[in-house]
Amino acid sequence: MTRRGRPGYDLESLLAVAVKLFNERGYEATSMEELSRKLGITKSAIYYHVASKDELLRLAVDRALNGLFAVADEAMTIEGPSIDRLEFLVRGSINVLVERLPFVTLLLRVRGNTKVERAALARRREFDQLVTELVKQAEAEGDVRPDIDPSVTARLLFGTVNSLIEWYRPRGGLGSAELADAVCAIAFDGLRTR
Amino acid sequence: MTRRGRPGYDLESLLAVAVKLFNERGYEATSMEELSRKLGITKSAIYYHVASKDELLRLAVDRALNGLFAVADEAMTIEGPSIDRLEFLVRGSINVLVERLPFVTLLLRVRGNTKVERAALARRREFDQLVTELVKQAEAEGDVRPDIDPSVTARLLFGTVNSLIEWYRPRGGLGSAELADAVCAIAFDGLRTR
Repeated sequence: MTRRGRPGYDLESLLAVAVKLFNERGYEATSMEELSRKLGITKSAIYYHVASKDELLRLAVDRALNGLFAVADEAMTIEGPSIDRLEFLVRGSINVLVERLPFVTLLLRVRGNTKVERAALARRREFDQLVTELVKQAEAEGDVRPDIDPSVTARLLFGTVNSLIEWYRPRGGLGSAELADAVCAIAFDGLRTR
Repeated sequence: MTRRGRPGYDLESLLAVAVKLFNERGYEATSMEELSRKLGITKSAIYYHVASKDELLRLAVDRALNGLFAVADEAMTIEGPSIDRLEFLVRGSINVLVERLPFVTLLLRVRGNTKVERAALARRREFDQLVTELVKQAEAEGDVRPDIDPSVTARLLFGTVNSLIEWYRPRGGLGSAELADAVCAIAFDGLRTR
């Protein structure tokens, strides 16, 4: 037997609409009722694809998290000083953010009110820990300023990256590589003229 | 006749509880019903203080916005190069963020689904415009790197500042001035060793 989606939506396009709605209205404020109205299909047609609203959230935030962890894995294979791995991680994360903007946006707004949200927050903390370790190593190698706590430096760095979801829109603006250049220039070398 | 609040809550303490709940659960997802349960008072007791949920939001985001615009006004009176005004604005904004953390957090999560939210977003844009102007002037004066669009530099700078709401907690961490020192060191001079 072949499982097929209802006409008009497969899981991919359903997820895209759901994530857009969650980002506009807030995950908690969005009901499956509203989602079914937005899609123009019945709730049972949605439940053909996913078991719950929670499952939609899990699928969405996993796309963002899997992208970020794939970049982290790749960064760790880079030879040379830690600051190069750190810069690779920043550039790769910006690329994930640009390519999966709605998913990353949803991830970064997760609050921890459900099990799925708490699991996402735990993976985010794991990622942050990894960034902090890289900053520490780069500081030990003399490439990162030693006057600021590495966990603060790591948080400010990824705070800058994550803040891109608030204003960056792929159409008509900077491309992913130009955006990464701008962020790396400011974050690594500062906005002041050297 | 003296108007008095119901026992236990005045407008100030009611607003504090409401903002905490909005931040935890999302503004849209929080009903006046839930708020009244959390407060342990009836909905009509809440309506004694405010006309609507929207009014609570307006009072809250205005606290944040008024704080930020007061800093901006003060920044503009500073003599000397524009980069000094910019740094003053960053430090002052961080101070507002630390002192009014729940209000600033709520402001930065506003999405624009209601009239109050759209008014708040308009004032945020006005503030961002002001930052961009300062960056432009500082660039014209030779103090800010000219290789990045001033509006991108301004957004990255305040993206870093605003990202503090995601992790900064006043108790047990850095004080407001130390936090501002760290942000200014990284944002103006970069995380790389010079």
